[in-house]
Amino acid sequence: MAQADNTNGNGLVVIVSNRGPVTFSRSDGGEREYSRGAGGLVTALNSVSRRSKDSVWIASAQSEEDARVAVEPAPYEVEDLRVAMVEHDPEAYDLMYNTLANPLLWFVQHGLYNLPYEPVLGDGTLRAWEDGYVPVNRNFAEAVSRILEGEDGEPIILLHDYQLYMAPRFVRERLGAGAFISFFIHIPWPEPDYWRVLPDYARRGILESLLESNVVAFHTHRYASNFLDTATEVLGAEVDLEKGIVYRDGREVWVRAYPISIDPKEFEELAVSEAVLEQEQWVKNLPGKLLLRVDRMDLSKNIVRGFQAYGRMLERHPEMKGGVTFLAQLQPSRGDIEEYARYAEAIRKAVVEVNRLHGSGDWTPIELSMEDNFPRSVAAYKNYEALLVNAVRDGMNLVAKEAAVINERDGVLVLSENAGAHEELGEHALTVNPFDIDGQADAIHEALTMPDDEKEHRASALRETVMSNTIEDWVEAQMRDIAAYRGRDG
Amino acid sequence: MAQADNTNGNGLVVIVSNRGPVTFSRSDGGEREYSRGAGGLVTALNSVSRRSKDSVWIASAQSEEDARVAVEPAPYEVEDLRVAMVEHDPEAYDLMYNTLANPLLWFVQHGLYNLPYEPVLGDGTLRAWEDGYVPVNRNFAEAVSRILEGEDGEPIILLHDYQLYMAPRFVRERLGAGAFISFFIHIPWPEPDYWRVLPDYARRGILESLLESNVVAFHTHRYASNFLDTATEVLGAEVDLEKGIVYRDGREVWVRAYPISIDPKEFEELAVSEAVLEQEQWVKNLPGKLLLRVDRMDLSKNIVRGFQAYGRMLERHPEMKGGVTFLAQLQPSRGDIEEYARYAEAIRKAVVEVNRLHGSGDWTPIELSMEDNFPRSVAAYKNYEALLVNAVRDGMNLVAKEAAVINERDGVLVLSENAGAHEELGEHALTVNPFDIDGQADAIHEALTMPDDEKEHRASALRETVMSNTIEDWVEAQMRDIAAYRGRDG
Repeated sequence: MAQADNTNGNGLVVIVSNRGPVTFSRSDGGEREYSRGAGGLVTALNSVSRRSKDSVWIASAQSEEDARVAVEPAPYEVEDLRVAMVEHDPEAYDLMYNTLANPLLWFVQHGLYNLPYEPVLGDGTLRAWEDGYVPVNRNFAEAVSRILEGEDGEPIILLHDYQLYMAPRFVRERLGAGAFISFFIHIPWPEPDYWRVLPDYARRGILESLLESNVVAFHTHRYASNFLDTATEVLGAEVDLEKGIVYRDGREVWVRAYPISIDPKEFEELAVSEAVLEQEQWVKNLPGKLLLRVDRMDLSKNIVRGFQAYGRMLERHPEMKGGVTFLAQLQPSRGDIEEYARYAEAIRKAVVEVNRLHGSGDWTPIELSMEDNFPRSVAAYKNYEALLVNAVRDGMNLVAKEAAVINERDGVLVLSENAGAHEELGEHALTVNPFDIDGQADAIHEALTMPDDEKEHRASALRETVMSNTIEDWVEAQMRDIAAYRGRDG
Repeated sequence: MAQADNTNGNGLVVIVSNRGPVTFSRSDGGEREYSRGAGGLVTALNSVSRRSKDSVWIASAQSEEDARVAVEPAPYEVEDLRVAMVEHDPEAYDLMYNTLANPLLWFVQHGLYNLPYEPVLGDGTLRAWEDGYVPVNRNFAEAVSRILEGEDGEPIILLHDYQLYMAPRFVRERLGAGAFISFFIHIPWPEPDYWRVLPDYARRGILESLLESNVVAFHTHRYASNFLDTATEVLGAEVDLEKGIVYRDGREVWVRAYPISIDPKEFEELAVSEAVLEQEQWVKNLPGKLLLRVDRMDLSKNIVRGFQAYGRMLERHPEMKGGVTFLAQLQPSRGDIEEYARYAEAIRKAVVEVNRLHGSGDWTPIELSMEDNFPRSVAAYKNYEALLVNAVRDGMNLVAKEAAVINERDGVLVLSENAGAHEELGEHALTVNPFDIDGQADAIHEALTMPDDEKEHRASALRETVMSNTIEDWVEAQMRDIAAYRGRDG
């Protein structure tokens, strides 16, 4: 994109995220092989990467072969990508990932703590910060500066997500004022009181680092506005709430919302792929109308209350029994962490309870699938009558968007007001309060019994809304703002 | 006060709170007796009540004899008070108190829920709202309007706390625009995202009702500002954040902070009372320096982490062993509720753990008192070297103020940044993040080893701060604003 638009300057574009687009391995014959990753963020960043011949994507080495790539001259070319791997000290990486980022920052930003008891912060937290999070972030910044060695022009550095919060500070230290730093946060930003759960060094340190960026970006206006409030309350930063600008040491930091999206073509192609067609037979054989949920098994997803709500619906509308199947495609996640194992247990218990109470010999109310089966999820996307997305809190939730573009039954979306997707899709969905199971029971029933014309009307509005802001538009909007920011300077 | 200042109009002053200043009972001889209540709110409202010969205080009947008083002509005179009792339907009261106010509103406003699992809202919540909270509040409003029957002038209605949120709406319906309604909220007001945990009817209904008041009052600027944000986010209300005004149907609602305080004289007298002097011997016999906490056993008080922090301090500073006793005066509370019983259990476990790990034959590190022994608490106020107030969240915390005025050892206050008292007292205390136990361990150690001159300096600054805003000043400030509001109208 540096070349496509000269207001962007002539620098290289560097993308940095913890997980990268490829993982390397070694074949039995000793040959280097690779596999390309999937998932929303990778798709999105692929699309950024594709925009420029000059881009390099830096990510953490995850495999032994990744580590070998890390010490070779960078970047390494893979198909249309140029990648560079960063190897971290394993203990530092573990502290960053398993003490700081995934429990603490994830829980704080999604509001998942049982605050009377958890978290118990202390020296362990400080150590994970000083010996883990900070050095890993410094390491990323060093990789950025190595990649840019000998390059002319003013580079654009696109940093992604909550593993990298300290990177802006270290990148700025190395590259100076000329580098354009954009930081994208893909999870919710909480209100100031919840941010204050963090110890002072993280609470202030992260904000100060993020404000070394030129743009700090979120999926929704609500998160952007929470961030501005947090900067005001915690740092006493000077902020223009209307314009979304933080004034910092004479610089402007633009705080923006760019709702992430999907590549509709990718899903249209997937929908007719052999793997999906194969699964579709199984899906179509499920009795009755299909109620679907597709989620990683995270505490933020509100899976237990979803089953309770479905049970409540069956209790109130016994005539629905046998006429609906709730397919839950749940991708296992972080099962080695006690809190997650306990949640998986609560999920299983809720399913058993509903199936025992309402099921019969030839009908299982909930079909639970706790395996990673993406083709089956896509097959189910095509066939649901109702899709439940009832998250306690969710950065965006791409399932709602993916499913909307390939669903063939004018399926109805039941959507939590706390999912990021609600800002765009809410008006065409049935909105639910994620804490209210009777409200969710009503919405599920309404979705499953909605008249055809209303279903059709809502489903096409959903589809159009998604199609009007695809992943390409997401990238475009960010690039336009980078150009505008630079244009303003010049 | 209506008579003291004629800008207040000539109306009666009516105070309404769920708990009143007296409870009636019947002696064995069949005589009506009464006992006057204690506690921060009652002291505070006594002081409002004393200001005017014309005031009446309405409260819920709690005893059988209260119920008899309720059906007699009101008001009923007791010493310097004029009281009226409201009898509620017992089932409605139970729903209001035990389903809506104490679990739901208390937990939402203190941020105490484990959101992935709790609360599970639904029809039960709706029923508690419609058949409990709303009718009880209508009942209060009817009592207000009965008391004012035949009265001339424009009355001042002072409504108090989270059991009465719907009262402004019903009072306004009955008394019209001329009545001056002030609503005081004594617990924290959360940020909009946490307020949104409530179902829509409560979320909006409560805000709309509160905005029927002329003044909505809190203990801190932070709560007032959270309330303004919530009104903006949830109702789309028009708000002037600087001035603290909500514009509503052509009216102004002033949103203000009046930090509640204590009557220093009451504590100075208590300090030399026989009951206290008797307890003081026991307190003085505890070995070593006295570290004190005095709390109701509520999940918001952070009692478990306090013991963990103390244990951590002993671990790091073994030289302190035997030289300190942590006296925890914990008043039992809501023990019939599972969540509270579990918390009491966690507290006991934490105490046993610290005492087992660090105690010796002749020294018990933590002296746990789980009984209601106010004289002993006051005796301990006089003698602590360090006072721990580490609440997860606390509307004000009057313990910090009560203790500061009668402590005789220049004791150091270790104070949570999430206690309302922190806005006034923070600069003279050692501030702690309630989630960080090593930080609390450090602060406890610093407090117990602080040089005398610094202790003296801090303790007198604390005392002066409390003395400069007593309960009388608290009442004055509110009355001044009522006069100013009315003056503006005229």
